[in-house]
Amino acid sequence: MSVSINEIFIHPELYDQKKITVQGWITNIRGNLKIMFIELNDGSSFKNLQCVLKSDNIDLSKAENLAIGEAIEISGVFSSTPERQQNGEVLVENLEVKGRNYNNNFPIQNQEISLEVLRQIPHFRHRTRLFRAIMKLRSSLFYEIHKFFRRQGFVNFSAPILTSNDGEGAGETFIVDDEQKDFFNKKTTLGVTGQLHAEAYALGFKKVYTFAPTFRAERSNTRKHAAEFWMIEPEVAFFDLEEIIELATKLLQKVIKAVIIRNKDEFTFLEKVGDKNLRRRLIQFCDSQVAQVTYEDAIKLLSEHKDQFEEKNLFFGADLKTEHERFLSEQIFRAPVVVINYPKSLKAFYMHQNDDGQTVAAFDLLVPGIGELIGGSQREVRYEKLHERISELGMKVEDFQWYLDLRKFGNPGSSGFGLGFERLLMFVTGIDNIRDVIPFPRTNKNILM
Amino acid sequence: MSVSINEIFIHPELYDQKKITVQGWITNIRGNLKIMFIELNDGSSFKNLQCVLKSDNIDLSKAENLAIGEAIEISGVFSSTPERQQNGEVLVENLEVKGRNYNNNFPIQNQEISLEVLRQIPHFRHRTRLFRAIMKLRSSLFYEIHKFFRRQGFVNFSAPILTSNDGEGAGETFIVDDEQKDFFNKKTTLGVTGQLHAEAYALGFKKVYTFAPTFRAERSNTRKHAAEFWMIEPEVAFFDLEEIIELATKLLQKVIKAVIIRNKDEFTFLEKVGDKNLRRRLIQFCDSQVAQVTYEDAIKLLSEHKDQFEEKNLFFGADLKTEHERFLSEQIFRAPVVVINYPKSLKAFYMHQNDDGQTVAAFDLLVPGIGELIGGSQREVRYEKLHERISELGMKVEDFQWYLDLRKFGNPGSSGFGLGFERLLMFVTGIDNIRDVIPFPRTNKNILM
Repeated sequence: MSVSINEIFIHPELYDQKKITVQGWITNIRGNLKIMFIELNDGSSFKNLQCVLKSDNIDLSKAENLAIGEAIEISGVFSSTPERQQNGEVLVENLEVKGRNYNNNFPIQNQEISLEVLRQIPHFRHRTRLFRAIMKLRSSLFYEIHKFFRRQGFVNFSAPILTSNDGEGAGETFIVDDEQKDFFNKKTTLGVTGQLHAEAYALGFKKVYTFAPTFRAERSNTRKHAAEFWMIEPEVAFFDLEEIIELATKLLQKVIKAVIIRNKDEFTFLEKVGDKNLRRRLIQFCDSQVAQVTYEDAIKLLSEHKDQFEEKNLFFGADLKTEHERFLSEQIFRAPVVVINYPKSLKAFYMHQNDDGQTVAAFDLLVPGIGELIGGSQREVRYEKLHERISELGMKVEDFQWYLDLRKFGNPGSSGFGLGFERLLMFVTGIDNIRDVIPFPRTNKNILM
Repeated sequence: MSVSINEIFIHPELYDQKKITVQGWITNIRGNLKIMFIELNDGSSFKNLQCVLKSDNIDLSKAENLAIGEAIEISGVFSSTPERQQNGEVLVENLEVKGRNYNNNFPIQNQEISLEVLRQIPHFRHRTRLFRAIMKLRSSLFYEIHKFFRRQGFVNFSAPILTSNDGEGAGETFIVDDEQKDFFNKKTTLGVTGQLHAEAYALGFKKVYTFAPTFRAERSNTRKHAAEFWMIEPEVAFFDLEEIIELATKLLQKVIKAVIIRNKDEFTFLEKVGDKNLRRRLIQFCDSQVAQVTYEDAIKLLSEHKDQFEEKNLFFGADLKTEHERFLSEQIFRAPVVVINYPKSLKAFYMHQNDDGQTVAAFDLLVPGIGELIGGSQREVRYEKLHERISELGMKVEDFQWYLDLRKFGNPGSSGFGLGFERLLMFVTGIDNIRDVIPFPRTNKNILM
């Protein structure tokens, strides 16, 4: 029977001494005239299936020219060996070559290649162990996020990506259409958030979320910025700031726990080549209460360590840079930390204005190694306050009239946040460049294939 | 305890005679000085929760100004009434108004509004029963698709949306960047397919899929075209045409069956207001073998009914129009039908060229009411054949060199298809305009909010 390698490894007892057929790619091959060993991988499992070819059972000349990367189909009897590390092996009776290499230049061999070199071949790099691990984790995490929201009773909602107004009220957007190009007959950009539209759907469905690609014409070439990335944005009616922070924490803790259980082999490998404490650190986060600090207190705490920063000008109203965010979580709290109540001048127009007249009910969740992982807020539900803020910021009121109108009919207030999927994946894998957690990354001046 | 209406309806016995708190929106209100009835909906369930207010238990003046659309929180004791249609009711002891209407102009009242009028208020229309049903089904179907692929061992893969080459080799694309705008320093468009990139990932992971927004600068204003829609694209290495057709059929049958079971109330409502045979038709499809016909035979069959068509010129090489596609499935096969082996001139460059020298190993799955729901193919794995076809069509070989290179290393061939999510939703709901199954639809000259 034709079966995936993952299926065999999950239930080796079911396949013990049975004849199986497996299709996959050669990741290693060695041996001599009497016996050969092929490590086969079909992508279903991080681990390879060991295939043994003995000259008694099969004409070894069939295998003598095989190379790493080639696609084959093998049949043979599987033996479960639970006592050994490799779980079992197949004694091959039949081998068919399904896809040869044209020449000896297949770039993925069993030697280390730098991440920079691999970034030049995004169409091949997932055939290394490192990228197999990352991309399998990416897929798992992706699914666990959908599962979390589904189980929590959320409605998945597709926010439009082509938009004629800009959620953040500023920012670098890609322009897709304008009066000249006349497809839509108005300036149309790639949306930077689905939040405004999600707020509309939270009224009526209460709990909604979007999980979709997002675009920023971000010219800074940093480790954590990409022009195209995926974002998770839940929006919940009736929720205030504290409730949405609780949801954010719960989401992270649940999905991280789930992938730690499901993707044991990938984590074992990542710890071998990278951060030895990866899982320990993640589990610690999953099992703790996340600390909370006001922006005002955060500034005070950071001010005591001015000598550590490039940007030393820290005052109420100063924008926290990545170095400050990381210092807060890495050095001061030594764990992820939530900062709340930012000055309204630093945040978008739609956030709930606190009674102090200075701050808004916003939060950022900061994590070690990255800085901001999540940004969210309670939304301003008061029509007049929101209208005033839109005018104050010089935004066109008529562009946001529909959004203002959401305040007119049965709006109990709502809260939500944005979680960058790739930043989460960086946090979970310990990989420190966003280009290495996206299959085909897009950054400024850089669009390969 | 605070609870969702869906939770109560799933386990009414757990909440019977218990005090509960529910937050939601008023969908109906009636009564007199002694007793009032509020129908409450919180989006978790299609059905409303009946709330009874008696002057003995609560000061009815609290409720006298309430209106449809307003947000409230109620507490009271729930009584399960399994014998009655409404499943149970709450005797309200406490009521808090959480979001009032500013005036009496809330557009969603208990009277019929035309779909055209509702299209002008996409930020409110989901608060009608019809759009609540459609959007809840959309969310369910979305999740079931991810679940299907996960269970089948697929790796979710994010194809890039910003691309510098165009998968279909032609077609109307949105341009995001060019040499002048200089963000990427080359012509960059919104991708029309993730397939080419998915093929790269199928090598190594074997089974991959993408499910993401797709863009077409499509100027024809039809019932089934949108400028932005979601597409499901699986790609499987080692699969040939027949195997990928089997996967397509299985996917449709599984996810449709799943939502029929999960979304009973939504279907009951859709059948009440629309197609009475909706579920019967869908179940029949799920339980049958899907018929298959070659393009050549399809042309012959259609030629016998020329008088039925606007486009009567039917010959080997003619592009099937929607009228032909629908006639095939509605009149000739009276069920969904798969057409295979199209002339290569009608299809994209990457399809496997059959031995007859004229056709490619492509398939379209046609369904009643819509026409093409799925299009897919076995891919051309032979480097020379593919190279030749790219040149023949006048496409720039250097743009596709990376794609050609996929043929060089361990490529056993792959097959895949594209399924328009919204077309599937139209098929499943019986809704006949794509604008009514997308929260905020984008079409030519039409981008509201």
